[in-house]
Amino acid sequence: MKLYGEDNPAPNPRRVRIFLAEKGLTLEQERVPLRERAHKAAEFLQKNSLGQVPVLELDDGTFLSESVSICRYLEAEHSQPSLFGETSREQAVIDMWIRRIEFQLMAPIANIWRHTHPLTAGLLTQYKDFGESNRAHADRAYRWLDDELSDRSFIAGPTYTMADIVALTTVDFGRMIGVAIPEDCSRVLAWLQRVSERPSATA
Amino acid sequence: MKLYGEDNPAPNPRRVRIFLAEKGLTLEQERVPLRERAHKAAEFLQKNSLGQVPVLELDDGTFLSESVSICRYLEAEHSQPSLFGETSREQAVIDMWIRRIEFQLMAPIANIWRHTHPLTAGLLTQYKDFGESNRAHADRAYRWLDDELSDRSFIAGPTYTMADIVALTTVDFGRMIGVAIPEDCSRVLAWLQRVSERPSATA
Repeated sequence: MKLYGEDNPAPNPRRVRIFLAEKGLTLEQERVPLRERAHKAAEFLQKNSLGQVPVLELDDGTFLSESVSICRYLEAEHSQPSLFGETSREQAVIDMWIRRIEFQLMAPIANIWRHTHPLTAGLLTQYKDFGESNRAHADRAYRWLDDELSDRSFIAGPTYTMADIVALTTVDFGRMIGVAIPEDCSRVLAWLQRVSERPSATA
Repeated sequence: MKLYGEDNPAPNPRRVRIFLAEKGLTLEQERVPLRERAHKAAEFLQKNSLGQVPVLELDDGTFLSESVSICRYLEAEHSQPSLFGETSREQAVIDMWIRRIEFQLMAPIANIWRHTHPLTAGLLTQYKDFGESNRAHADRAYRWLDDELSDRSFIAGPTYTMADIVALTTVDFGRMIGVAIPEDCSRVLAWLQRVSERPSATA
């Protein structure tokens, strides 16, 4: 197995780095220098036709993209510690929370990034009013999440899971581009401190 | 188990209906009349704080939302015929394709729906220029998918899987709101005919 493009500050490669740190796994790695647009070169597009990192090459030559799918594969091969759940109920609840974080929180943060940030202005047509409107969506998502966290320590239940990894990389990316957690979301702030104190958070 | 709100024309409830038809499963169901805003009433918000259908109530009282997570749970309980894959490689590839269809194709179609369609105009602030710009993204996604389908009959490989269900409900929803498959995407059109001929497609 070989992992391509995990050396990247974007949220998706970081998901895989944190996952590997939590599992105590080390994989062979190959850099994909995004500044040189290596992820859009013909050679890399054969690995992922969408030109996105990270990509995991399996021993049979299969190329897997999508950070969550890569981690799901690694979980199936290395079950402990479990980050996607053990019973079918746990697995479904964690999957639901991965999706909820992506659709409710990552989506508005990604829209703010794409449509308002100076660093993306040269890469696409920005619709700034639309982008700015997503700040209210992100705030609403944080308030919803704060309510949800009233009965538990982690995103999907009493233990740390892949849903926390997806949430942490999303929240930290938001903070990096100026999307703050509302100050009154004390449970989200406490959760952030809790997951950020784990050694894996530096990955 | 009990399924809430599957009686709905939106893509997500249809995913679960097609999945159940492919599995040959029947579940107890309860209507959630969206026209009466029953999905936003306090009683339903206790089942899904996001106010979205469908929701599956498990026998232990857990409420699961997110159509893909509901189907994933049902697959774990009723493994045959497999729609999420059997080996860890198959499972990861199918998961990757579910995500690719959602992020590459469903995302622009959802933006067109939310930001250009008369039926959503009263429900949110529409950014029409942004919405219209997504038509080019949907076209590009269809051309990318057409290339991808050059070596196989179904979205994630040689057999029908959950990725086909996610794609079919997305494509049909697009067609319903005026987002057509580009005429030169002959492989996508052939795939659509192939999956639409299955009895489950009428679900």
